[in-house]
Amino acid sequence: MRPLRRLIQIDEALSLIRKETKPITRLEIVSIADAYGRVSAEEIVSRVDVPPFARSAMDGYAVRASDTYGASKLKPISLRLGEVLYAGSVPKRKVKKGECAEIATGAMLPRGADSTVKVEDTERKEGHILFYEAIRRGQFVSARGTDISRRTRVVSKGDLLNPSKIGALAAIGREMIKVYSKPLVGVAPTGNEIAALGTRLRPGQVYNINSYTLAGALSANGADVRMLDIVGDSLQELQGLLKRNRDCDMIVFSGGSSVGERDLMADLIEVSGRLVFHGVAIKPGKPTVFGVVGGQLVFGMPGNPTACLSNAYVILAPTVRSMARVPLEPPRSVIARMSKRVVSTKGRTHFLTVRLEGGVAHPAFKESGAITSMAFADGYIVIPADVDLLVKGERVTVFLL
Amino acid sequence: MRPLRRLIQIDEALSLIRKETKPITRLEIVSIADAYGRVSAEEIVSRVDVPPFARSAMDGYAVRASDTYGASKLKPISLRLGEVLYAGSVPKRKVKKGECAEIATGAMLPRGADSTVKVEDTERKEGHILFYEAIRRGQFVSARGTDISRRTRVVSKGDLLNPSKIGALAAIGREMIKVYSKPLVGVAPTGNEIAALGTRLRPGQVYNINSYTLAGALSANGADVRMLDIVGDSLQELQGLLKRNRDCDMIVFSGGSSVGERDLMADLIEVSGRLVFHGVAIKPGKPTVFGVVGGQLVFGMPGNPTACLSNAYVILAPTVRSMARVPLEPPRSVIARMSKRVVSTKGRTHFLTVRLEGGVAHPAFKESGAITSMAFADGYIVIPADVDLLVKGERVTVFLL
Repeated sequence: MRPLRRLIQIDEALSLIRKETKPITRLEIVSIADAYGRVSAEEIVSRVDVPPFARSAMDGYAVRASDTYGASKLKPISLRLGEVLYAGSVPKRKVKKGECAEIATGAMLPRGADSTVKVEDTERKEGHILFYEAIRRGQFVSARGTDISRRTRVVSKGDLLNPSKIGALAAIGREMIKVYSKPLVGVAPTGNEIAALGTRLRPGQVYNINSYTLAGALSANGADVRMLDIVGDSLQELQGLLKRNRDCDMIVFSGGSSVGERDLMADLIEVSGRLVFHGVAIKPGKPTVFGVVGGQLVFGMPGNPTACLSNAYVILAPTVRSMARVPLEPPRSVIARMSKRVVSTKGRTHFLTVRLEGGVAHPAFKESGAITSMAFADGYIVIPADVDLLVKGERVTVFLL
Repeated sequence: MRPLRRLIQIDEALSLIRKETKPITRLEIVSIADAYGRVSAEEIVSRVDVPPFARSAMDGYAVRASDTYGASKLKPISLRLGEVLYAGSVPKRKVKKGECAEIATGAMLPRGADSTVKVEDTERKEGHILFYEAIRRGQFVSARGTDISRRTRVVSKGDLLNPSKIGALAAIGREMIKVYSKPLVGVAPTGNEIAALGTRLRPGQVYNINSYTLAGALSANGADVRMLDIVGDSLQELQGLLKRNRDCDMIVFSGGSSVGERDLMADLIEVSGRLVFHGVAIKPGKPTVFGVVGGQLVFGMPGNPTACLSNAYVILAPTVRSMARVPLEPPRSVIARMSKRVVSTKGRTHFLTVRLEGGVAHPAFKESGAITSMAFADGYIVIPADVDLLVKGERVTVFLL
């Protein structure tokens, strides 16, 4: 058995990881129907005008504004009604002086006309329309290209594609877009005590929990997750797994990173690549290992389910987002008061799970081996490394799970 | 042409929709690997203990606590070292009085032993281990069932499955879970002016934008989206579409709900089912229609892309979430100051899109026909119906897009 090396603070750990994290450069082409939440890998400049023609913004009458000059409440001007234009129909006739055309919202403005008057502001009389006020030229008309004009940049490289950006792509007729591939993250539970779901537990075994919790937390942050088979506690098996999964951008092992004789993670990384740190001053999650093997980020997470999942939120989520080029969303939080005194370990940042009841936070932590420390919790509080006591009733920020 | 009926306020509209909205009762069975973000349709009670055996929570030595009584810094007690127990291995021998076993975190406690002493607190000496303090019985041991005991409810009906709840299911060996089906929402653009992506625009036509913006906004809120073909402006075509998509829980039309002669949405709903409202006092989005046809919620959204998408956020998102039984997340917001005076229409709730620059909100709205009113915006502010003016510099809450 050997002790962990010098523990580093969580901020230092995150900064060391950040230094090794490279945004994904692989590209793929997706339909804009599937592009929601993806990150554009290209700048897209419109080659067309949207709308491609001047169109009416109201239901009413297309007129020449000059024909309405002099109109008033008492002295309306009467224009002869020509054709009726629906959205999608093509005007057949020019609107001449003294004429107007009935026009629907979105319909193409006929030649000659330059403005629309709302139907509510007019009156109809024997094939003529009465107008009661002079209007300005261009009223209620969307000129060609007012939404997007030719040569407008619609999407920039690195833009997160939300519904409205996807809408702008549709507007210019763009069907496909180059996006950055999602980071491919392999999740590998290690340990001879771990049994796959669907098998019968032998004495001494427990079910694989971490693959499932990690898959959820990683995919929620923009990763493609590859669930790998359970690997035994042997350097050879672990090396084999790394070799078979060279195409992953990141491998997350769980288990095998504590201080026992069989704690192989640090060895594995040292033998195969470069160990960056081993041991972080956090609770739970202390025996966390990180290194780089052939350009691949390799994490050794504690096997304890709560420690492993807590690390996924604190360490893996920002890392995956930065690889995926997706901005980090601040976790949702509420303010609560501690139900009781909590003693923390000075020198370690403590992530304490809590249940919320009417604005009061009750510690929910059992032990980091217990998944119910988190599954039966509503959120967690962060007790900084230099704080060793929360008093009963103290105001705390609870980050919601 | 005919006017909209009495406009109703947005709160009344939402409350009328809520009254007609039923949570989905259809079920499906999914693997827990795919259950992230789904809603459990069953209560799951554990039939097993987790852990299934007493296990060590530390790397160290399994002992009988009573053997350490009387130990002190100056007078250590020496116990003979028996077997070595790794996680996953099955103890072969009982720990007898005067003996101990080396044990790794997670390993099964051997018979006889009741406690673990951390390796750091001991010393090794010629096949014996020295213990320097008396420990309490049960120290660093997770008893059988401490995480989840038989008959514990692990997941309740209606629980949103987050990573830790999925982890708890894995812990009890559960592979599949019954979840509520996602609401199936058909999205149907209407209007003869709308052209499908990939086709060549004819004069008077614009591309279909709303199917893509709606698909993004709806799926982000828990819907399964069925993209339907563009339908022309005829009652018969619209009725045919409703008939063909009876299996949808909701149909969202866009276009055809303004006041023009061809505004068929209200007619369609009245003819086929029950019209609940036609016209909401919001800007943009006034000509919104809602009704129920054969148990299916039917929305007629304005064809204007910004009005349509704004409605998706304000009206459709809460409706879909309530059908999906997924709690509504408050939209992320920031506080900013208005860059200039904004005049609003009294009596209508106004959703104004803005760009953010260094804490200042600049109006981004062009016209509701312009998708770039939203695509080039960072968020929107809500101006209540009874407010008609924001002054320059006024503090506003910007809801991020």
